[in-house]
Amino acid sequence: MSHASATALTYHRSGVDYDLIDPLKVAAQRAAAATAANLAVHGVAEVAASRGESAYVVDVGPFLLASIVECLGSKALVADEMTRLTGRSHYDAIAQDTIAMAVNDLITVGATPLVVQAYWAAGGSDWFADAQRAQALVDGWKRACDACGVAWGGGETPALAGIVEAGRIDLAASCTGIVQPKSRLSVGARLAAGDAIVLLAASGIHANGLTLARKLVERLPQGYLSPVTSTLNYGEALLVPTPLYAPVTEALAHAGIDVHYAANVTGHGWRKLMRHPGAFTYRMHALPEVPAVLRFIQQHARLDDREAYGTFNMGAGFALYVAEADAQRCVDVARAQGHEAWIAGRVEAGDKRVLIEPLGLVFGADELQLR
Amino acid sequence: MSHASATALTYHRSGVDYDLIDPLKVAAQRAAAATAANLAVHGVAEVAASRGESAYVVDVGPFLLASIVECLGSKALVADEMTRLTGRSHYDAIAQDTIAMAVNDLITVGATPLVVQAYWAAGGSDWFADAQRAQALVDGWKRACDACGVAWGGGETPALAGIVEAGRIDLAASCTGIVQPKSRLSVGARLAAGDAIVLLAASGIHANGLTLARKLVERLPQGYLSPVTSTLNYGEALLVPTPLYAPVTEALAHAGIDVHYAANVTGHGWRKLMRHPGAFTYRMHALPEVPAVLRFIQQHARLDDREAYGTFNMGAGFALYVAEADAQRCVDVARAQGHEAWIAGRVEAGDKRVLIEPLGLVFGADELQLR
Repeated sequence: MSHASATALTYHRSGVDYDLIDPLKVAAQRAAAATAANLAVHGVAEVAASRGESAYVVDVGPFLLASIVECLGSKALVADEMTRLTGRSHYDAIAQDTIAMAVNDLITVGATPLVVQAYWAAGGSDWFADAQRAQALVDGWKRACDACGVAWGGGETPALAGIVEAGRIDLAASCTGIVQPKSRLSVGARLAAGDAIVLLAASGIHANGLTLARKLVERLPQGYLSPVTSTLNYGEALLVPTPLYAPVTEALAHAGIDVHYAANVTGHGWRKLMRHPGAFTYRMHALPEVPAVLRFIQQHARLDDREAYGTFNMGAGFALYVAEADAQRCVDVARAQGHEAWIAGRVEAGDKRVLIEPLGLVFGADELQLR
Repeated sequence: MSHASATALTYHRSGVDYDLIDPLKVAAQRAAAATAANLAVHGVAEVAASRGESAYVVDVGPFLLASIVECLGSKALVADEMTRLTGRSHYDAIAQDTIAMAVNDLITVGATPLVVQAYWAAGGSDWFADAQRAQALVDGWKRACDACGVAWGGGETPALAGIVEAGRIDLAASCTGIVQPKSRLSVGARLAAGDAIVLLAASGIHANGLTLARKLVERLPQGYLSPVTSTLNYGEALLVPTPLYAPVTEALAHAGIDVHYAANVTGHGWRKLMRHPGAFTYRMHALPEVPAVLRFIQQHARLDDREAYGTFNMGAGFALYVAEADAQRCVDVARAQGHEAWIAGRVEAGDKRVLIEPLGLVFGADELQLR
């Protein structure tokens, strides 16, 4: 198979311009931070260390309250295209992805997710007329809630003609949970030099980097039907749903293992491993197996390792930072929950950066601007 | 001014087909209800009476947890059109509307709202390049959070080209709060015959019925610039932001007034007054003043009172159901918070229906299907 173009397809080139979003994000973050004072009248207070983390945490007295809203992003476009090509709905799979985006973020702060709300904004009432697709969405959403041990509280299903494109749907989820006991809180000063980094296996692309993955289709003569493995074509491989890691963090709590920090490896790929605000070096000595679809994308989009590991999860779906003495037990607990896991790195004192030793890669602090 | 057409413009005719959405809603509600059992493993339980109410409530032990996600709907299209016509951004106003949609629903269950998360899904990164508009959105969002006493926890600002239309934004908010003490819970069996119905004044159309309101523009020779009052044209009058009623429900709690039930008067207009699942007759003896923009719509869309009161808030933004002995004090507390309020009706034993006596209108139970 030949490439339509020999140029590398980088994330910036594929259509998302973070430079335009970031000034707004900075203004919003400043304004949001200033609202924390509003809580005093209710006798509660924010956990300041959660600002800029993946979920926001408030101390309500007996425990901590965590909340978040997250969206699926453009993965629904892949599902729509695959339905056009094969007739099969993949909305059960992307329902799980949507919940994973919210729940896998919420658990990074040490929260037990309790309630998910659905936000399904369609391009018009007629979106809901496709009963098979709608039922797949409902079924997948419920199964993911069951797998995470959360109640599906309700949600909103607006028909937004003129805002959402005709025939499309914008899927998002909000999630609320509690951190109990408060000592489960895994943001702030608990991360320490000497901690081990345990990685949980990814299942594929999850729901990050899809803009690039969709752009790549234009270069593939067989498009979404290009074979990636002996059983999966490119579209199917992209649509393998994101794992739900909540059972792992719950099992770790029950096993008495303190998680010092946790990072959901989403946008920015392995750069997310230095998400914690502290100055640490994250030295990775082992690489998880790369899911076939990500190896396929790296090869066909002609991405070097720096671009690939700086954009995609490359097999590492979630990172747990625990005391070295707990690392093997952490791996065992994750495996008992059906998630492959590895002790893959170590936190060290030093300049803020991620070293991926097997690949000779370094990501510096200036390559991850989230706050 | 003459009408382009003499046909009445009903809500169904204006483009939202609830018949198509409702089968999905029913399937989703059934699946959601079945997930409540997932909470047992965490030692918490849903408040079953909150199913089908405006916010979902979980008993977490020392208090109750309430959560919700809500969207603005199509009001952003009015803001966009008014910017095109006048150059001024109204995103500060619709930011308040978005938060009002979430917070005014959350407080119906007796919750103190604590955290709002922003969901701003744009049709592309370039939406955020309009710095004036983006700043108006941030400023309005923050002011509304301050007015409600909530912390703005964070949020999500995805660029969703191909899902959200180019140049548009899908605005939504999630909100989390607590019901404390638990006796503040205002769903379930507390509503009783003999209770008074106190209405809080609306400021205008709020964010419900906008599809019809936008459709009406086609019939107005001056469109959005048609004068509605001596100072406001149609577009400006539509964009008057929704009041934030959270300070009223908080003040009622501090004053020791038990709210037996509360209804946010949104879609379905006054039919929402019979939102409670019980069999009661809601006899309304007084009408609030109708906001000029709603009188304008009723006149120009040629809606009879049944259509108008069954679609729009017609001046009643929020309904509080309290013991008759507390009714006047409830009004006084609301007025002290700057919200006009009236004792406007009474709950009676009898068939489920809303009687609007001054207009000779009756809405039967079959005219509100929310569960």
